[in-house]
Amino acid sequence: MSILVLVRHGESRWNLENRFAGWVDVPLSEKGIKEAIECANYLKSFEFDVAFTSKLTRAQITLSLILSCQKKIGIFLHDDLKRDNWSYHPMRVDESEMPIYSSESLNERYYGKLQGQNKQQAREVYGEEQVFIWRRSFDVAPPNGESLKDTYERTIPYFNNNIVPFLEKDKNVIIVAHGNSLRSVIKYIEGILDEDIPKFELNTGDPVVYDYEKGKFNKRKK
Amino acid sequence: MSILVLVRHGESRWNLENRFAGWVDVPLSEKGIKEAIECANYLKSFEFDVAFTSKLTRAQITLSLILSCQKKIGIFLHDDLKRDNWSYHPMRVDESEMPIYSSESLNERYYGKLQGQNKQQAREVYGEEQVFIWRRSFDVAPPNGESLKDTYERTIPYFNNNIVPFLEKDKNVIIVAHGNSLRSVIKYIEGILDEDIPKFELNTGDPVVYDYEKGKFNKRKK
Repeated sequence: MSILVLVRHGESRWNLENRFAGWVDVPLSEKGIKEAIECANYLKSFEFDVAFTSKLTRAQITLSLILSCQKKIGIFLHDDLKRDNWSYHPMRVDESEMPIYSSESLNERYYGKLQGQNKQQAREVYGEEQVFIWRRSFDVAPPNGESLKDTYERTIPYFNNNIVPFLEKDKNVIIVAHGNSLRSVIKYIEGILDEDIPKFELNTGDPVVYDYEKGKFNKRKK
Repeated sequence: MSILVLVRHGESRWNLENRFAGWVDVPLSEKGIKEAIECANYLKSFEFDVAFTSKLTRAQITLSLILSCQKKIGIFLHDDLKRDNWSYHPMRVDESEMPIYSSESLNERYYGKLQGQNKQQAREVYGEEQVFIWRRSFDVAPPNGESLKDTYERTIPYFNNNIVPFLEKDKNVIIVAHGNSLRSVIKYIEGILDEDIPKFELNTGDPVVYDYEKGKFNKRKK
């Protein structure tokens, strides 16, 4: 028996400006920081054993704020720091600590040419219907970008190979990521249909909690 | 005429536990977050054009909290994100935005075998005098680790090649980094002697401000 908590990062500066962020790495807004701190206080009653996040700061900072209030001390584990004799790897995180893994597999949907554009500007350039289709279809990708299906297909193998094994070992897991990488996880867990998932809304800084036992996820009611 | 602001990250969970962190990537404590938010409010009256930080989360999160309150929106620029057509590079950050560069050159001193150890434990293992020498000498390195001199020798070339050119173009710069990478910068700027710099104390979340003009730095009084 274990717990899986999903948190979408707090509001970013570009959420506020209604711009497509995707992989552009924008910090939280002041409101986003407040949301993350509220979420951190709510999650104090949980005890996590391992944390996962993306390579983008709006998710990492939200996670850092959450972990500041946790009993176990989180340690970000990097496979890319260059120091030759760097050796603080997963095996060395002891029981009183919590490993933090970050991966591009959990990044936001890559929005290609839309990245950086204001949503209203994008409607003027590409037409309202086209922008609606890009945002609300499952498998239509914007120029040079990913569809939600593309995001799903990189997120779910990572989830199955790297995250589920911890749940099976009765470890409590928190994932702090993005609207579309988390939609992918929720679609997979709850079996939501292709046509329904793009409409599924996930609020910033508002945790979704599942109990996990023997391969089954049960969503907790709020 | 431009401004250089140096900020040591807020208190980390391991500062609180009195453990050597070095390159181990530990989040801020709750106190550290408060320090960073206070610093962010103080720095609201400044307008930065470019930001530099290390590859470690305690510096990045402190910077993110500071930038949440800035007029310009900071964008972390990554040279290591893998997406093929990733193209939000420095040239695309427009005037209303602020590029954020992160580099291992600004990381904390690499403490080698001391990393993860409590300072009291280290004294018991290696002797009080030896630990004092490692912490307070300029050029003695702990096993597998860096001396402050080693840290200086990677930090200052980065500072001269990547940071000073912005100051020369009248851009206001903020660096959020660590006790020893910032000691190196301060030693360099102020010409502090080898034997004096290890004793120089830099408080967490407490900005040091310099006015820069024609190659000269003038430290502002508090």
